[in-house]
Amino acid sequence: MTGMDVIMGLKQLVYEIEEISLDNRDLIVNETVFHNANGYIGIRSNFEEGYPEGYDTIRGSYINGFYDIAEMSQAEKLYGLVEEKQTMLNVADTQTIRLTVDGEKFSLFEGRVLSGRRWLDMEKGVSKRAVQWRSPSGKEIEITITRMASFHQLSLFTIEYGVKALNFKGNLEFESFHYGKAENYSNENDPRVAKESGRYLVPAEAEMDGGESYLTSHTSKSGLSVCTGVAHRLSKECRIVTSHDAENHCVVSNMELPIDQNERVTLIKYTVFGDSIRNPDLTRHVKEEMKKALGLPLSYYYEEQKAYLLEFWSNCMLMIEGDDALNEAVNYNMYQLVQSVGKDEYCNITAKGLSGEGYEGHYFWDTEMYIEPFFNLTEPAVTKNLISFRYNTLKQAKENARLLGHAKGALYPWRTIMGIECSGYFPSGTAGYHINGDIAYSIVTYYLATKDLDFIANKGAEIIFETARLWMDVGNYREGSFRINEVTGPDEYTCMVNNNYYTNVSAQYNLSWAYKFYYMLEAAGWRQAADRIGLTEQEVIEFKQAADAMYLPYDSELGINPQDDSFLDKKLWDLENTPREKFPLLLHYHPLHLYRHQVCKQADTVLAHFIFEDAQPLEVIRNSFAYYEKVTTHDSSLSTCIFSIMASKLGLEEKAYEYFGDSAKLDLFNTHKNTKDGIHTANMGGTYMAIVYGFAGLRIKESGLYFAPAIPKQWEGYKFQIRYEDSLIRVEVEPDKSVFTLVKGTGKTVYVYGDSYILTDQFVVPRKHL
Amino acid sequence: MTGMDVIMGLKQLVYEIEEISLDNRDLIVNETVFHNANGYIGIRSNFEEGYPEGYDTIRGSYINGFYDIAEMSQAEKLYGLVEEKQTMLNVADTQTIRLTVDGEKFSLFEGRVLSGRRWLDMEKGVSKRAVQWRSPSGKEIEITITRMASFHQLSLFTIEYGVKALNFKGNLEFESFHYGKAENYSNENDPRVAKESGRYLVPAEAEMDGGESYLTSHTSKSGLSVCTGVAHRLSKECRIVTSHDAENHCVVSNMELPIDQNERVTLIKYTVFGDSIRNPDLTRHVKEEMKKALGLPLSYYYEEQKAYLLEFWSNCMLMIEGDDALNEAVNYNMYQLVQSVGKDEYCNITAKGLSGEGYEGHYFWDTEMYIEPFFNLTEPAVTKNLISFRYNTLKQAKENARLLGHAKGALYPWRTIMGIECSGYFPSGTAGYHINGDIAYSIVTYYLATKDLDFIANKGAEIIFETARLWMDVGNYREGSFRINEVTGPDEYTCMVNNNYYTNVSAQYNLSWAYKFYYMLEAAGWRQAADRIGLTEQEVIEFKQAADAMYLPYDSELGINPQDDSFLDKKLWDLENTPREKFPLLLHYHPLHLYRHQVCKQADTVLAHFIFEDAQPLEVIRNSFAYYEKVTTHDSSLSTCIFSIMASKLGLEEKAYEYFGDSAKLDLFNTHKNTKDGIHTANMGGTYMAIVYGFAGLRIKESGLYFAPAIPKQWEGYKFQIRYEDSLIRVEVEPDKSVFTLVKGTGKTVYVYGDSYILTDQFVVPRKHL
Repeated sequence: MTGMDVIMGLKQLVYEIEEISLDNRDLIVNETVFHNANGYIGIRSNFEEGYPEGYDTIRGSYINGFYDIAEMSQAEKLYGLVEEKQTMLNVADTQTIRLTVDGEKFSLFEGRVLSGRRWLDMEKGVSKRAVQWRSPSGKEIEITITRMASFHQLSLFTIEYGVKALNFKGNLEFESFHYGKAENYSNENDPRVAKESGRYLVPAEAEMDGGESYLTSHTSKSGLSVCTGVAHRLSKECRIVTSHDAENHCVVSNMELPIDQNERVTLIKYTVFGDSIRNPDLTRHVKEEMKKALGLPLSYYYEEQKAYLLEFWSNCMLMIEGDDALNEAVNYNMYQLVQSVGKDEYCNITAKGLSGEGYEGHYFWDTEMYIEPFFNLTEPAVTKNLISFRYNTLKQAKENARLLGHAKGALYPWRTIMGIECSGYFPSGTAGYHINGDIAYSIVTYYLATKDLDFIANKGAEIIFETARLWMDVGNYREGSFRINEVTGPDEYTCMVNNNYYTNVSAQYNLSWAYKFYYMLEAAGWRQAADRIGLTEQEVIEFKQAADAMYLPYDSELGINPQDDSFLDKKLWDLENTPREKFPLLLHYHPLHLYRHQVCKQADTVLAHFIFEDAQPLEVIRNSFAYYEKVTTHDSSLSTCIFSIMASKLGLEEKAYEYFGDSAKLDLFNTHKNTKDGIHTANMGGTYMAIVYGFAGLRIKESGLYFAPAIPKQWEGYKFQIRYEDSLIRVEVEPDKSVFTLVKGTGKTVYVYGDSYILTDQFVVPRKHL
Repeated sequence: MTGMDVIMGLKQLVYEIEEISLDNRDLIVNETVFHNANGYIGIRSNFEEGYPEGYDTIRGSYINGFYDIAEMSQAEKLYGLVEEKQTMLNVADTQTIRLTVDGEKFSLFEGRVLSGRRWLDMEKGVSKRAVQWRSPSGKEIEITITRMASFHQLSLFTIEYGVKALNFKGNLEFESFHYGKAENYSNENDPRVAKESGRYLVPAEAEMDGGESYLTSHTSKSGLSVCTGVAHRLSKECRIVTSHDAENHCVVSNMELPIDQNERVTLIKYTVFGDSIRNPDLTRHVKEEMKKALGLPLSYYYEEQKAYLLEFWSNCMLMIEGDDALNEAVNYNMYQLVQSVGKDEYCNITAKGLSGEGYEGHYFWDTEMYIEPFFNLTEPAVTKNLISFRYNTLKQAKENARLLGHAKGALYPWRTIMGIECSGYFPSGTAGYHINGDIAYSIVTYYLATKDLDFIANKGAEIIFETARLWMDVGNYREGSFRINEVTGPDEYTCMVNNNYYTNVSAQYNLSWAYKFYYMLEAAGWRQAADRIGLTEQEVIEFKQAADAMYLPYDSELGINPQDDSFLDKKLWDLENTPREKFPLLLHYHPLHLYRHQVCKQADTVLAHFIFEDAQPLEVIRNSFAYYEKVTTHDSSLSTCIFSIMASKLGLEEKAYEYFGDSAKLDLFNTHKNTKDGIHTANMGGTYMAIVYGFAGLRIKESGLYFAPAIPKQWEGYKFQIRYEDSLIRVEVEPDKSVFTLVKGTGKTVYVYGDSYILTDQFVVPRKHL
């Protein structure tokens, strides 16, 4: 048994489709589903040889955090509205390889496909395509293509293209392309992507170095450069003839060679990506990276890839027994998280990972509320990176606060690449002040999971102090309570309201922890954060007072927390009689109409009840869940996972399972019909959360580690490992009991169903129903 | 004494500036101040000979209701957001005439200006410029230029250009230009006008007919055409040499002739404007209009102009004794209203009249709330036209309602030219649902002033029924009262709120009158309006129920009507400590920041208290006035006139006078610093209202005609005439008494200070202090 077998109990970590559909709708979705990424680069899984003319395709390669500036014209110009946004670029196309067999071009759309499979091997970290094909004239070949975005060398993407002649002897020709002038996707039939179109990269330099080509392009406005290097290696002797066009944007490498019957010829195409954000001496850097890649056999990289993932899977091991489809979906989702998340301080994790152009490569609150909860438990160093990114952009957040009229504090952008606000429609963008509370919450959560006070002292506290200051400036006292007006909560179907419950309770937490950290750090003799920003004790006392006086809307008649001051005054949307084709509502109703109704795009108060469960009695949480469930459309992909978690908490097992399934299958089944634009990373984190925080009832609080395991009746069992402080803990849940094992580290107190246990080796708790 | 002398008591209706400033800032403002218009065409008062290179100028000619479609890109595309707007075009430039005297070009910026005056003769309906000028070589000439937009023939604009040689005998050359390719104003230093720039007209045909030129251009998208015809007549024999360029966009007419010392030579330049909205057979129509103009002496048109204005001034006579400056300002404002208001069913009155490009020639609620109150009392047929325009666009208003999600009713656009919504920023545009209430209110007001039930039966009722239907769809019952959520009231510094007092009380009025008119018309046997739209009695009963149950926010502690449900919860803006240069606030603060504060751009609840004074006890109105006065910036030009009226009502005479002065002087003193972009027509109506509804306390109610005359202590007296039903009534107010005279028509009951009088001939009421 391999190391992975041990971890995963012999489950294979492979997502496969048995037959390759040539339907355009499937192809474009599979470009996303099978994409390769490593957190630095992402390459969509296009066919190397392309599709026929007229097919809709997004042939993209992306670099995390690399952007240009695009104009965003406001229909009416008001003070402070955003008119420029950072936008992720399609940086190059190096995946195009055309194969000709004795003069016949290989294409799945011609001749006959004898067999075809595509799969993603999440243990090896590669995607594969295997095809047996008969050409129109009857020549049969077997093609096996392996694609990898290397975790070991983040700049590297490889395509290993194997061809075997099955029933003939003849000639092969590879035409391999290196385009430096890629364009972002646009579709004139879809107004949502039509306007974002256009090319931002300007080809600048082309350098041929032996058989290698290096193309450098500049962005049009952001002053950045990107360089891609391409090299080829063949399994047998072959002359490579390279030519390039005058405009420095396309290099073609021609390789012609004979092939015997049953011979297998392999072409390895190496692409190295580099950008001027990380490497000012760009071309040299890319050449060095290429030299490194070519200096080692590809098998070395494959081994390293596998080793990296072995480590990953060991940390985040999660397995469902008795439901292979869901097990696969959950592991697929976790794999996408490691593919997507930035590995350095220059970037974060985009809403669509590096798999597509939806949301333009922007970072949202998704990071803090849906992604970090996964990494906190599996690889807290990643969370630390993600928080550091926020720390690095604190300056811009302060500038943003000033623009919004705030004399003090920092307001993080609703969506951004490098820290500036890129939200064109502020009512459901910039007005989402809860982003501040989310970031503060995530820092506290990281601290509670790791007790890394050093990081708090150096970076975390400063963010928490500046966001706390902002709440003081935005809020005001009225009738003895502290209120926050004119903000938008998580639910984007209700905008610019007063006292959004989620926002207020987040602000309360933010303010309280600013107070706590201030004194914790002072006690530890670490005053640098407070000193750096001139934070006074008086301010901190006021933080505490505002937190204590925070107004949290409550309706005594319904026994729920209203989403905001006026939510319950509004008309109820008649969801039952809304035709299916009218969903998602945002594509079919004017915002004013949505805002005027009690209808939610996503979890809002229900999410607040999850993350701040101690703020309300269980009965209120139960009532709220029931109330909001009736008015929520889940048009946002951030919603069902939260409803699943809360259904678990409330003992609504059927519902929990159903919501979990909706979340888990979102991308693999394209249930939101937009997977072509990229995966939904937040939901992927949410799927994990629905198991660990949902079914297993994990909570990390100041007072310790809590579980309340439940298990869907469809499952035989499930297990996972989490890191907590210095320990690694395994949790195995079966229908009648849960087993807690200390895999590594020191013993811990663990609360299960409210009872405390000392975990030094292992203990078992019988199932308790809520 | 002339007829006008009798009316105006020998006051001259002339606005004059003694010295012509050549400062660019003055010149561009005076282009507006001295513009000529007649409700169909408007021509800015540029110097015929132009300014030096680099001067900022808006050289425009406009046709009321003539538009092109312009793209309005939304930074984020949400369902139903407006992406195309109708925009007024600069249709041609026919005012350019260059004069050369013995080879020296006439320009006020060269040689020496010996004397110079500009004035607007509001009795004759012309603007004039008179200059004595010495050329660099010492030749002296006297130039007198008279410009007129004819009220008698709406298509016609004339320039009478007289030159007298004072100290020499020599040669004159006129070069007269006819440009068909005018462009709208843009200024790259001012982002508010930079993006609206660009040319929408495409020159299409040029025709030379004798010495006349006809240029036709097409709009780029709206499918409309405009044609201008130009002809010249000289006071002495002269050959006119006409040439035109290949692109059909510029015709030049050259005229050279000798001049004797002390001889006066006059060139008359005729321009005739035509558009395809009103005249499908466009060129022929324009030629016929030209033929008509050339067939009569210019003196005939001058006489007709004067006669038209004599009639106008007789109807709207208003005179202030003891304050010539304010008297002049008020009469200037009334003159602008007759210049600006549309004279046919194809148009309305734009926010800037036909004097500039601000607000792109759009029609707003200004029409109903600030302009019609003037015409109701002076020329109700104009109001009828303005309402008919709304009737003609009812279909688009219904479509707009559907787009906004309403199953029933009509929602008028916040800004429009031909009936479609042109508001790019919906929170302070489309969300201003009170436009519906305003239109309904204006119809009721027209009815109360005229008792023209016939018009109600044919047009008015249908609008009132459809707007009432919309309130039923937008509102909802809660706790027994009828609420209206997520709308924006008149105050644009607070957007998308629940139960805006103004909106709710307007809706209440609209619903009540829908009920009343339904039964009034039924009683009169006129069911056509209800039948046409399938209005049922059940609906009408529900209108009444909603009106009766209408929720009107009231704060018992302050004893005021809060502007909306949450207005009082917000922070007070510290107006006292806001630096002067930060006004208007909208140019210096983000909308979210404004919306989060108690700060008003303009009268909102105070306006509601004016138009629906019986909805609240006087004490509440008094408290509200005091409260809102403290938080209102008057950044809108629609504000001070209303505060003046309400100060009058509340006996706050000093305040009333001060606010009145602010309103009256707005354009002549350019106090809002944007008169260059056009006059503020609504404020001009407001100035009139501040006297008649304010100082004189006029109200027209179902129960009759009310006055409560007061007089600013600075004045000796003031008088005005109003029409009421079939009568013409003169009111003369002096410090100690008021005299009411029936000038024409049948006797009326009039309430003065609450007491009723029968007006058959004249009665006098001594001054009563409130």
